[in-house]
Amino acid sequence: MKETIAEWFKGLQDRICAGLEAEDGQGKFHEDLWQRAEGGGGRTRIIQGKHIEKGGVNFSAVHGPMPESITKALKLPAGNFFATGVSIVLHPVNPNVPIIHKNIRYFEMDNGTWWFGGGIDLTPHYIFAEDARFFHQQLKATCDKHHDTYYPKFKQWADDYFYIKHRQETRGIGGIFFDRLSDVEGVFTQQNRFAFVQDVGETFLPTYTHLFRKNKDKPFTNKELAWQRVRRGRYVEFNLVWDKGTRFGLDTDGRTESILMSLPPQANWLYNHQPEAGSPEADTLKLLKKGMDWIG
Amino acid sequence: MKETIAEWFKGLQDRICAGLEAEDGQGKFHEDLWQRAEGGGGRTRIIQGKHIEKGGVNFSAVHGPMPESITKALKLPAGNFFATGVSIVLHPVNPNVPIIHKNIRYFEMDNGTWWFGGGIDLTPHYIFAEDARFFHQQLKATCDKHHDTYYPKFKQWADDYFYIKHRQETRGIGGIFFDRLSDVEGVFTQQNRFAFVQDVGETFLPTYTHLFRKNKDKPFTNKELAWQRVRRGRYVEFNLVWDKGTRFGLDTDGRTESILMSLPPQANWLYNHQPEAGSPEADTLKLLKKGMDWIG
Repeated sequence: MKETIAEWFKGLQDRICAGLEAEDGQGKFHEDLWQRAEGGGGRTRIIQGKHIEKGGVNFSAVHGPMPESITKALKLPAGNFFATGVSIVLHPVNPNVPIIHKNIRYFEMDNGTWWFGGGIDLTPHYIFAEDARFFHQQLKATCDKHHDTYYPKFKQWADDYFYIKHRQETRGIGGIFFDRLSDVEGVFTQQNRFAFVQDVGETFLPTYTHLFRKNKDKPFTNKELAWQRVRRGRYVEFNLVWDKGTRFGLDTDGRTESILMSLPPQANWLYNHQPEAGSPEADTLKLLKKGMDWIG
Repeated sequence: MKETIAEWFKGLQDRICAGLEAEDGQGKFHEDLWQRAEGGGGRTRIIQGKHIEKGGVNFSAVHGPMPESITKALKLPAGNFFATGVSIVLHPVNPNVPIIHKNIRYFEMDNGTWWFGGGIDLTPHYIFAEDARFFHQQLKATCDKHHDTYYPKFKQWADDYFYIKHRQETRGIGGIFFDRLSDVEGVFTQQNRFAFVQDVGETFLPTYTHLFRKNKDKPFTNKELAWQRVRRGRYVEFNLVWDKGTRFGLDTDGRTESILMSLPPQANWLYNHQPEAGSPEADTLKLLKKGMDWIG
């Protein structure tokens, strides 16, 4: 099963890279293959294009004895593990195009423990109601195909996870987040959990493509670029201070350049920046809250 | 005693701000006074000048019941505390001028526990041997006036503290770092610890002024600016991922804008950036190691 999952993840990486190159129209992914001394490795792919200023689509499949740092952090017994995943972060040129993040992952241990995790979340520099609605509708449709508890539960989980505690603001408009999805007698099996994760993986490209095409050629001003860079600063704050995946990777000697591909090409920090009342920037800031109903 | 220390810290903040304004020749500090609901407050001062692109010189003196997050993190009994300090970070315009950080602080509890902490460290975008020597000589001279164990011990502590573990590189050329300096029968008293901390505080301005005047008018290229922004990215990584003070502040609901004044005005992340072999950038990177003898 684990080989099947890893192979499918690899194929997804290929399809998404091809799709994003076609959308960008100019940039090509640069691939770095890497190996992990203790077992496994990955394919880190980075694009710097015409419309995608910096983006990464990474695949990895690693295995070996559980490092002590992991058994401690995840409160797991010693043994051998296998972990595979696909991670994506895209920073667009145009401030009207949102930043997007997607991750799907599978973990198992030789004692039989296994789970899936993942999520997709959107970080618009400017929130457009119809784009936010579209994004959440897409996720809801994907979730609803599998279980009616998925969307409400995973939407709330995303609100709680993608939260910049020290700013008391969400990273963006959320999306879905889930972790440790395993079997539940009579309801969830490894097969139907995998089918769900596959659907989440496949939802990424058409969803982002729609938002990308709609917004990538909109004109923008230097003021909007400046705001984009402030919001990118918040993205850095979330990823380096709060994101468990990033911190876990850095703590456990993961490949730094693959982990930190999520950081924006440029981020700015202005002391105590407050957007003008009533401005589009202030309006966006007001919406960066947990518990918003984006579908309405 | 605690009032004496806080008053002296306030005076130091005033002298340093006046000195930096004179050196910059154009920028003026903007002051934000803030209060902490549970007791105390601070004076955050930010400059955006001609030569100092972004700098902060902060004073705070806070008190009240120990928050549970602090008793847990510092493994201290419950009770009332008092903490005061001065923190400085300066990001210069010119890549030939180093980033500098300084902090001095005093902490006490109503059970009689007290200690001083602090440090100064330098982050040159380009390491110049004579500047590095001068900087460490200044710190050594200050330390040697107080105890001959201070410089070697605190220099090593700085190497270990200002370390970007996931890059296996130091933040810069280090300096001195010390924490929990308390009394030691027959050797160290609250008076002589305070005298040392005062000297560290007074060392800052002449030391930085020397490096500033020497380098601030050197011509620089866009390539050097690009490198400055990569190094600033590393500064962000250190501060948000590893700096205990920053994380402690964010975890305990400190004033975010005062804590994050340390972040640069602009930082860039280029995927897997490797400076050209033999370039000044590569030469600097090679020196970002623990245990360097800068005085020679």
